[in-house]
Amino acid sequence: MSRKMQGLRYAIIGTGAIGGYYGARLQQAGCDVHFLLRSDYEYVREHGLIIASVDGDFALPNVNAYSDPADMPPADVVIVALKTTQNRRLSELLPKINPGVAVLLFQNGIGVESEVSQILGESASTVLGGLCFICANKVAPGRVRHLAYGRVLIGAHDSQGQLCAPTPLIKNIVADLTRANIEAEATEDLPLARWRKLVWNVPYNGLSVVLNATTDEMMADDGVRSLITTLMQEVITIANAWGEYASPSTDRSIPKGWAEQMLAQTESMQPYRTSMKIDYDEKRPLEIDAILGNPLRIAQKLNLPVPSMTMLYQQLCFLSVANAGSL
Amino acid sequence: MSRKMQGLRYAIIGTGAIGGYYGARLQQAGCDVHFLLRSDYEYVREHGLIIASVDGDFALPNVNAYSDPADMPPADVVIVALKTTQNRRLSELLPKINPGVAVLLFQNGIGVESEVSQILGESASTVLGGLCFICANKVAPGRVRHLAYGRVLIGAHDSQGQLCAPTPLIKNIVADLTRANIEAEATEDLPLARWRKLVWNVPYNGLSVVLNATTDEMMADDGVRSLITTLMQEVITIANAWGEYASPSTDRSIPKGWAEQMLAQTESMQPYRTSMKIDYDEKRPLEIDAILGNPLRIAQKLNLPVPSMTMLYQQLCFLSVANAGSL
Repeated sequence: MSRKMQGLRYAIIGTGAIGGYYGARLQQAGCDVHFLLRSDYEYVREHGLIIASVDGDFALPNVNAYSDPADMPPADVVIVALKTTQNRRLSELLPKINPGVAVLLFQNGIGVESEVSQILGESASTVLGGLCFICANKVAPGRVRHLAYGRVLIGAHDSQGQLCAPTPLIKNIVADLTRANIEAEATEDLPLARWRKLVWNVPYNGLSVVLNATTDEMMADDGVRSLITTLMQEVITIANAWGEYASPSTDRSIPKGWAEQMLAQTESMQPYRTSMKIDYDEKRPLEIDAILGNPLRIAQKLNLPVPSMTMLYQQLCFLSVANAGSL
Repeated sequence: MSRKMQGLRYAIIGTGAIGGYYGARLQQAGCDVHFLLRSDYEYVREHGLIIASVDGDFALPNVNAYSDPADMPPADVVIVALKTTQNRRLSELLPKINPGVAVLLFQNGIGVESEVSQILGESASTVLGGLCFICANKVAPGRVRHLAYGRVLIGAHDSQGQLCAPTPLIKNIVADLTRANIEAEATEDLPLARWRKLVWNVPYNGLSVVLNATTDEMMADDGVRSLITTLMQEVITIANAWGEYASPSTDRSIPKGWAEQMLAQTESMQPYRTSMKIDYDEKRPLEIDAILGNPLRIAQKLNLPVPSMTMLYQQLCFLSVANAGSL
């Protein structure tokens, strides 16, 4: 490739909607990006990636595509854009990671950095967390449709859940993303950012499966709207109790009005089929543990009754097993 | 007809699984029974009814079938075996009712006698409630499959929800049913009987729709079993608070161990698709109001938080509307 490289070298593990979109943006901005693929490997190696984006369509006819992580060159940042349900396979899916390399999880849910740290073991490099506020779907091999938003929030992981000032590496990643026209930001409170995002994910991802519905269909029903609000409040209850438990002397609570803001934002969104609903429709495993199971375990530890989240979790577990059985 | 009549004369309004089964049993026992039908009228007038029953199959080649209630002769007892969702049409569906005639509701849920009393107006005859503990489905026109159980509990309705000693008419109905090989009993506490039955109906009817599952599938899943238990406890909470509110000096609470008994009984049952699930699959209206809406209104009046029932209600309302829209 003749174009001038700038920025860090990235390995993208999992080239679906998230990995495909952000990886393509980084490559478009001149970063050296290497994509690990599974089912789409042959197609993408030959045809590259196409991003149909609200911020402007673009195509990358040539990308560095791999089907085997062992073939990938050493990267500065390994972005894991797999579903959390694939994390137990991570040890086979990661390329060789040199010391100082960061593994950055572009994943939803609570507790994922801890899980991945355990999988990587003591010798592992830094684990970072990234939250992608984006509506995007993979619509065909090598083809991502970016519907709305795109902001990314990146923070370091602390095993005790404490605040972490952004490292130079995080600042460099944020700089690369910013140059790639992504609204990117570093956060010193990754757990709080995760809880805030969870306020959306629990009701909308969960209920979209149980109710077989898109976001607009749910928002149009007064009862479901009320249920969404109840679920949001339960997530906020756990989040705030966890924040007080982790840092008694620091206010890490979710800002007042956050649930209302999420509702208003979803109302103004285009009709959206959530990622969990897509997984369900495609008969893939659902991210129930990261999005509901782990938060519920924290609620239990802190003795917080969260009946609606508990019920949603029980329903999703049942539907997920039944769905897998109907393959 | 040449056979000797004995017992009361019955009009059966709605000849589905319940009306067909009990009406056929009464006719088999020698009662004078008159069936109102809608879609199956032509077929049943010509071929009669066939009951495939665990207690012995039988056929009634000749039954008194009607498509218009105005054609029906005056009855002593009008058994309403329609779904509660049809109750607002009752004024058109009832035959002329002479004074002293009883309207006996073979329906599930809470508050149905009050609703029907209001529909019938001041001049109306006695409204009685009947609870049918039966697994039965209509499998074809004029053909009912009786899978298990069959017990009937009958009580008088008091607008204040107070205890009512069984009337002579109730005793005569019980006698007719008993002669028809039905395990029948009079109760002086119809509301309590309704609440007890609701302990089953809320979780199994409700969740069978949301989870697209039969009773055995639900019982095989630990999480759903736990959710069923939670829902049962919430029904019991409302029932007991209502009993205390209606009769402060009388113990009308649901017996201890009732939920466990319902769970064990369901476990020993053949796999069963609930009536609400059948209604959903057939794209008919669901009995959400009688089974969940009315109990929830009582809970609200008594300031009882019942989060799981509330959530189930919200989910069912949404699914019911979506289901009707997908006709």
